[in-house]
Amino acid sequence: MDLAVSLQVIGVVRTAHADLSTTPIQAGLNRAEHGSIEIDERYAEGLDGLAEFDYAWLVSWLHKLAEPGSEPPLRQVPFLLRSQQRTMGMFATRTPRRINPIGLSLIRLLEVAGQSIRFAGVDLLDRTPVIDLKPYVTRFDLPSGEPRCGWYDQVPISDGSAPAQLRPPST
Amino acid sequence: MDLAVSLQVIGVVRTAHADLSTTPIQAGLNRAEHGSIEIDERYAEGLDGLAEFDYAWLVSWLHKLAEPGSEPPLRQVPFLLRSQQRTMGMFATRTPRRINPIGLSLIRLLEVAGQSIRFAGVDLLDRTPVIDLKPYVTRFDLPSGEPRCGWYDQVPISDGSAPAQLRPPST
Repeated sequence: MDLAVSLQVIGVVRTAHADLSTTPIQAGLNRAEHGSIEIDERYAEGLDGLAEFDYAWLVSWLHKLAEPGSEPPLRQVPFLLRSQQRTMGMFATRTPRRINPIGLSLIRLLEVAGQSIRFAGVDLLDRTPVIDLKPYVTRFDLPSGEPRCGWYDQVPISDGSAPAQLRPPST
Repeated sequence: MDLAVSLQVIGVVRTAHADLSTTPIQAGLNRAEHGSIEIDERYAEGLDGLAEFDYAWLVSWLHKLAEPGSEPPLRQVPFLLRSQQRTMGMFATRTPRRINPIGLSLIRLLEVAGQSIRFAGVDLLDRTPVIDLKPYVTRFDLPSGEPRCGWYDQVPISDGSAPAQLRPPST
């Protein structure tokens, strides 16, 4: 079953990255790098109030991974498990190769001015389309206690990790 | 600009709610209620490993709010500000009436078995299409410090809040 929908592009992400293999895998691992979002002028009014938040969810369409007809495998070796060559179900990973290539990045807001947002925490290619922005609300987005995080609890996770550094072991 | 895409429905949410006005507004405010997700059998293999996580992001298509041609207003009175009748920019709220009606629910996983997921924290109508599932990973999804959460920091937020209880003041 599919939903034939028309997603509106509300803006575009501007970053220094043109190559997936050197783009950090998660915003939270790359807070030292800054990027920006150019919101389409039609939607700029919708930003009113966002400057009062420190973080937001940047929901994006991972356009380089959205090739029709090339469905990604349901079991994959995530970047962080390449050294072990372990596979995981796609929905137990944050792989960008998903059935629907929707990105979810937790960005730290630096400035919201007019149609432009500056943020810290870059994990997206330049010109990635933005399909939603939602404010981070602790009351909604913070689990209680210290949740188990599956296989992520068992691997080292370094700031700035990018696919090119997370190579499979040489054979 | 729009992206004419075909979102794959990876599953369907089953809850006790058929009426938006009595459906709680956020999963985190309604952990006492349980729901389930029926994953399409084509994608069940992608769940491998998910049972080892306590929480997940349920990304959904808010189908009842996705009427073509009826774009929601960029400034709205959020449910939690109805008593004050204050407007906010859409992207500074978690309103379900969005340019792209994409829902983001933090669910607590109770059981992942075969094609079925039981979870705690219900904020969706019965039969809402699921378009992605991502594991909650503290290292990626937890902001540092105590982030400012804009106008949400200034309003009382009660467990179980639903639109019908959050009426505008009578005039």
